[in-house]
Amino acid sequence: MIKIKRKSTKLIILCFVLQALSSAAVQAEEFFSINNGELQRPTGYRQWIYVGTPVTPNELNNGKAAFPEFHNAYIDPDSWAYWKSHGVFRDGTILIKELVSIGSKAGVSGKGYFMGEFVGLEATIKSKKHFPREPGNWAYFSFSTKNHKQLNKTAKAFPTAACNACHQGAAENDFVFTQYYPILGSGKGQGENAIGGKLSDLNNSYIEPTSSK
Amino acid sequence: MIKIKRKSTKLIILCFVLQALSSAAVQAEEFFSINNGELQRPTGYRQWIYVGTPVTPNELNNGKAAFPEFHNAYIDPDSWAYWKSHGVFRDGTILIKELVSIGSKAGVSGKGYFMGEFVGLEATIKSKKHFPREPGNWAYFSFSTKNHKQLNKTAKAFPTAACNACHQGAAENDFVFTQYYPILGSGKGQGENAIGGKLSDLNNSYIEPTSSK
Repeated sequence: MIKIKRKSTKLIILCFVLQALSSAAVQAEEFFSINNGELQRPTGYRQWIYVGTPVTPNELNNGKAAFPEFHNAYIDPDSWAYWKSHGVFRDGTILIKELVSIGSKAGVSGKGYFMGEFVGLEATIKSKKHFPREPGNWAYFSFSTKNHKQLNKTAKAFPTAACNACHQGAAENDFVFTQYYPILGSGKGQGENAIGGKLSDLNNSYIEPTSSK
Repeated sequence: MIKIKRKSTKLIILCFVLQALSSAAVQAEEFFSINNGELQRPTGYRQWIYVGTPVTPNELNNGKAAFPEFHNAYIDPDSWAYWKSHGVFRDGTILIKELVSIGSKAGVSGKGYFMGEFVGLEATIKSKKHFPREPGNWAYFSFSTKNHKQLNKTAKAFPTAACNACHQGAAENDFVFTQYYPILGSGKGQGENAIGGKLSDLNNSYIEPTSSK
């Protein structure tokens, strides 16, 4: 019996060690792959951490918005863990923007904007190794075809001028628009309080609008 | 050497068995806790699977929308796995709606709606055990205080009449508005194709709007 116990103990310890090693491997993981300067289309991002969605419809932008879709933004899980702990984007961060058309404009809940279909995929990556000369080491990619019907398998980084000016000038944290991504904005360096539901105090400046009637 | 190999093989098999058992345990997990008829406030849902966000602003609803916020909806990871595989909501599904105020209405990307602050938390749960008499076994909860400043620690289910009529009449799949949640709508029974980025063909009906000018 003692012998069995000892064996079990050893086994449990070994399992823990294996588990720790595998966790360490995950910690160091990058969620993207760049070959010959081309980013391979990422997969699985709908199972990453969602951070927020802006929507800028055509009808509010003289009939032709620069970005007429919903933009669902995600961060990879390891970079989210780092953001929660340290409040900065680690080298190796990837953020995804999945483009979703505006579908219905009315539901039983009222008039507004309801998500329709997937129409594109974009990404931004912070990497000193891959983008040593880009501002903040961020590069920007799009996999969407022009007619929004297909996704390309690989993408080259946009020229710096295409995306960086807006990100550099207007984004709140290290070229990222965290002011529009409440999961990032409120979760910066907040540890486990960032995961949702932990705090009873919402600590907001919200005042419920009253009827205009 | 052979002896070591045999031991290693046994160990590896045992580790796999332990892993399989622990996976089985995870499969059966429920992501909520109901005590004395009250749902404990869920935590960690920002690390679950995001499914979509409708927004129905006040100004599009005569100054007083029924739901004047962004509603970020999430599903628990095990129920997501089940939905991907089977295309139905398993008994024990929990969906979260986190309410986010409309913050800015203009950014460098144009005019529209940008997420502001967290202002509430709601949930719906499908459980034959807990809600045998509710339509589809779904019950609905809110943790938000009236002024949207706090979250309660527990919540009682709303009376059936409060939420069910709309969900029963207008929701596309088993009382859930999957038609507005593209991650669920397009991912129904699609297995790993549901996780994002797997397919090159977007298979949408989208036609890019042309300028009205």
